[in-house]
Amino acid sequence: MNDQLTDRRGALMAAEIAEQPAMLQRILAAQHDALGSVVQRLRAHDPHTVLLVARGTSDHAALYAKYLVETRLGLPAGLVSTSAYTIYRESPRLDGVAWIAVSQSGGSPDLADSTRAARAAGALTISLTNTASSVLQDAAEIALHLDAGEEKAVAATKTYTASLLWLWLLVETWAGGDVAAAAPLPGWVSESLDIPAVLDVASRYRFVDKLVTTSRGFGYPTAREAALKLMETCYLSGHAFSGADLMHGPLAMIDEDRPVVAVVPEGRGGTALQPVLTSLRDRGADVCVVGPAGLAPESAPRITLPSGMPEQLAPIAQIVPLQQLARLMALSRGYDPDHPRGLHKVTQTR
Amino acid sequence: MNDQLTDRRGALMAAEIAEQPAMLQRILAAQHDALGSVVQRLRAHDPHTVLLVARGTSDHAALYAKYLVETRLGLPAGLVSTSAYTIYRESPRLDGVAWIAVSQSGGSPDLADSTRAARAAGALTISLTNTASSVLQDAAEIALHLDAGEEKAVAATKTYTASLLWLWLLVETWAGGDVAAAAPLPGWVSESLDIPAVLDVASRYRFVDKLVTTSRGFGYPTAREAALKLMETCYLSGHAFSGADLMHGPLAMIDEDRPVVAVVPEGRGGTALQPVLTSLRDRGADVCVVGPAGLAPESAPRITLPSGMPEQLAPIAQIVPLQQLARLMALSRGYDPDHPRGLHKVTQTR
Repeated sequence: MNDQLTDRRGALMAAEIAEQPAMLQRILAAQHDALGSVVQRLRAHDPHTVLLVARGTSDHAALYAKYLVETRLGLPAGLVSTSAYTIYRESPRLDGVAWIAVSQSGGSPDLADSTRAARAAGALTISLTNTASSVLQDAAEIALHLDAGEEKAVAATKTYTASLLWLWLLVETWAGGDVAAAAPLPGWVSESLDIPAVLDVASRYRFVDKLVTTSRGFGYPTAREAALKLMETCYLSGHAFSGADLMHGPLAMIDEDRPVVAVVPEGRGGTALQPVLTSLRDRGADVCVVGPAGLAPESAPRITLPSGMPEQLAPIAQIVPLQQLARLMALSRGYDPDHPRGLHKVTQTR
Repeated sequence: MNDQLTDRRGALMAAEIAEQPAMLQRILAAQHDALGSVVQRLRAHDPHTVLLVARGTSDHAALYAKYLVETRLGLPAGLVSTSAYTIYRESPRLDGVAWIAVSQSGGSPDLADSTRAARAAGALTISLTNTASSVLQDAAEIALHLDAGEEKAVAATKTYTASLLWLWLLVETWAGGDVAAAAPLPGWVSESLDIPAVLDVASRYRFVDKLVTTSRGFGYPTAREAALKLMETCYLSGHAFSGADLMHGPLAMIDEDRPVVAVVPEGRGGTALQPVLTSLRDRGADVCVVGPAGLAPESAPRITLPSGMPEQLAPIAQIVPLQQLARLMALSRGYDPDHPRGLHKVTQTR
């Protein structure tokens, strides 16, 4: 891929994707102290429920955190409709709630307003942002800093994996687990950076204008984020479904003309996805499996990820070849993935 | 539309769409007693959080209920990832939770299994189903019956609006509101059944294979459900975005070749959608506004809904012309909307 890296177009996105192993290493090395005191505050608050609020790419990080909270902490978790707190301005009962707002920029007014409302209503509010100061950070009681370094490309990449790792570290520390399990992560991400098959898939998908992504459990946020990257950079219809939801209706639209990218992790999510893969094959769908070798029936194309990643950490590496796919597909279409038409780095929504 | 109604193809779906005013009238007339005792149980349980679990069309009813719970009750609410309770089989802490499972058939094992787990973990569990007996009903402590009459078409229509009305009645009774506000609803739905512009839109969209739907707040479940109906019956890429999420990335893929169906309700959601409509117009998008007259800039095509519907009840009428649109678009493509390829009425997912 080196020839592509030197092209002016997409150079920012390429550099930010490539930075991820070192960035994750830096976060792992440095950030445990900040988390310890946050977890003390969380334990003192002893929340009965965790609410997460985010938009766009950060919303996929929030979805990942929701699965972590549900499975590692056994607490009820929900993704917040900000409109309930901003458009409709109701007074919620949020004592006993931990509220986590995730945003690269921290600049979106609806996140800051809803976080302010949640704090006033008794929630313990935490922001997770990448900018040094922001309206969201000011609104939250506790501010965590992603420390991903400045992100210049409009399509977020390294702030996504940084968010996932921070949320994993936060929940794992809260759950009393051992964060040393993440030590091999920079290596896995490094192995996922330059998988040659990604170039073949980008070529195969050169003229695709509708594409479906799917997974289950912890892989589902990856499917969502991959679809968003493809929409942002290649302007195609990238539509993500959990394998279970796909079977409830959308399966009807899958045919041989609409490729499916299936994220198949090792572990229970990947096992639960097997009947979905069978149904897709029965329909003649063109399925590209993204996952460790040996997990799914032979598929071509296929993007092979490192083996042995714990299912809860795998999403941090899984997304990387799909970020590369979005970048390479955009370049092959003559688009500049660093500057998607009609988008800005900070989106102002209320 | 009468000529279409007599066509054999789509006759079931046509009949079930047309039944909705009478069905809603029947639910309004008969069901208040059942709700009274459920609300007593809910008040005694005094939940701090409401979790909802559903798939497919019912998931859009659950999303609607989430907004109701957030705005009318001020309680935190979340849509459950069933995989957290079924695939990953963790032991959640769910005392103080009200758990509402919505399913037309009640036959999906993951809903029953997760509801059983929630009940064992201390949640007050309620099922809302349309079949007389089901595994989900057996799993839940309290069973509510939709009473929508048998639904034969694979694409759900009347069970969707019945679910919305039941959920509205449940939350409104719980909130101590006056359910008499819904009395005009069957009339609004009746007015929404045969809007001539729907035929024009179906014709305009004859060759569309990618379409975006959008709304905000209480209109967003309508956008989601409309996109699903179009995927199920017309096999096109129907992709729903909340107006806020659309601005965070997917806006890049909107151009003059991808029509947008914008559900613009009276009230705060419709107001919040105005900047999104402006951005779409600036991009040259072909926007069809679905909403009461006078709310959005002149658009052609346009599907005009009755005026004066409260924002929280409007979704029950809003979806009806979009059900008709899915049916008519399927017929015009030579498909049978009663029997979408590859789908069954009861979907078995774990």
